[in-house]
Amino acid sequence: MRISELADRAGVSVATIKFYLRDGLLPPGTATAPNRTDYSEAHLHRLRLIRALRDVGDLDLARIRRITTAIDDDGLPLHTVFGVVQDALRPVDERPADDDTRTAAADIDRFLSGLGWQVSADASSRGDLADCLVALRRLGRASGPEVFRRYAEAVDPLAAWEVSVIPTGGSSSEAVERMAVGTVVFEQAIAALRRLAHEHHSGLRQARESAGAD
Amino acid sequence: MRISELADRAGVSVATIKFYLRDGLLPPGTATAPNRTDYSEAHLHRLRLIRALRDVGDLDLARIRRITTAIDDDGLPLHTVFGVVQDALRPVDERPADDDTRTAAADIDRFLSGLGWQVSADASSRGDLADCLVALRRLGRASGPEVFRRYAEAVDPLAAWEVSVIPTGGSSSEAVERMAVGTVVFEQAIAALRRLAHEHHSGLRQARESAGAD
Repeated sequence: MRISELADRAGVSVATIKFYLRDGLLPPGTATAPNRTDYSEAHLHRLRLIRALRDVGDLDLARIRRITTAIDDDGLPLHTVFGVVQDALRPVDERPADDDTRTAAADIDRFLSGLGWQVSADASSRGDLADCLVALRRLGRASGPEVFRRYAEAVDPLAAWEVSVIPTGGSSSEAVERMAVGTVVFEQAIAALRRLAHEHHSGLRQARESAGAD
Repeated sequence: MRISELADRAGVSVATIKFYLRDGLLPPGTATAPNRTDYSEAHLHRLRLIRALRDVGDLDLARIRRITTAIDDDGLPLHTVFGVVQDALRPVDERPADDDTRTAAADIDRFLSGLGWQVSADASSRGDLADCLVALRRLGRASGPEVFRRYAEAVDPLAAWEVSVIPTGGSSSEAVERMAVGTVVFEQAIAALRRLAHEHHSGLRQARESAGAD
């Protein structure tokens, strides 16, 4: 298809596509005649992936580029794909750790060991969880990592099921895309569902309290 | 305390504090002498709140301002606080809905009704969940909202517990801050825990598959 049709079907502008082509996020099309370049369904799919990561996951282009680079590198050992995707999803600029953050990181390490979770020492999500603990402590909302226990217990069987339904075989490109989309989009879905469930349950609680007050 | 001490304790620059003061995110200090303004522990707490929302929750200043405005308005009826916080956390710029999004929104409405969740018709998280469904459909990863059922079932008891432990009484300022921090920081914590649990369970799966292959 021509670039205009690609733009139309993907719901982005031609200028955006040209930017992605220059930036390497989108592989070049096929020149079929002078001044004519054709794009395939694979280009459309890639644009939809970029939109999902950008619009739903709110990822910046640097992170999206790391994901598309990992997809384009179809020789990744499958057992490293989770780590590659998680590293790619990490923000590019890390803030330097202060004392509170280092203390929290050690607390999180002990907490994860206590859960029996085997996670690499340099998993970036350890730091994300430590940042959450620092914020909660500074606001007087938590004393230690035990504040996360209920959440860990809710997430554990869900993650086990998610990992169990990943098909075996397939290419590392497919696996990277699957995990990036699964991580990013369902993260947002979980957040939205939790907010909706909060509204539902706070309504139920109010109704109970009103009934009790009568 | 002086502005320099406030900056030091909050871990932000004096320039940032001056910006927040001009922008109304931070209430003015108390002039105690010509050319001397004092700031209180309440200012420090507010700066920590802003940092938590900005650094952990990745919220832009427009959303943070809506939260601080709701906190400063201590007359909100308590039963509306959840809605106020959720609206405040919504991105400021909404994209216009296309046909796919409208279809997905109707699907999500039916799905939530089917769950028995009573949620207001204009809850912004309905739209967020619809966006997730659109992205998954366009990438060939989902046909309908049933893809979210497991997630809803995991989140439901967690949200019920979270609502049940909110203390009764207190001011609407406290409730707004509590819910904003709880929503934003634990959203990030859940995402981090899920990624860590993925790594743990994919390791277990690999170990099983290697053992089975021997």
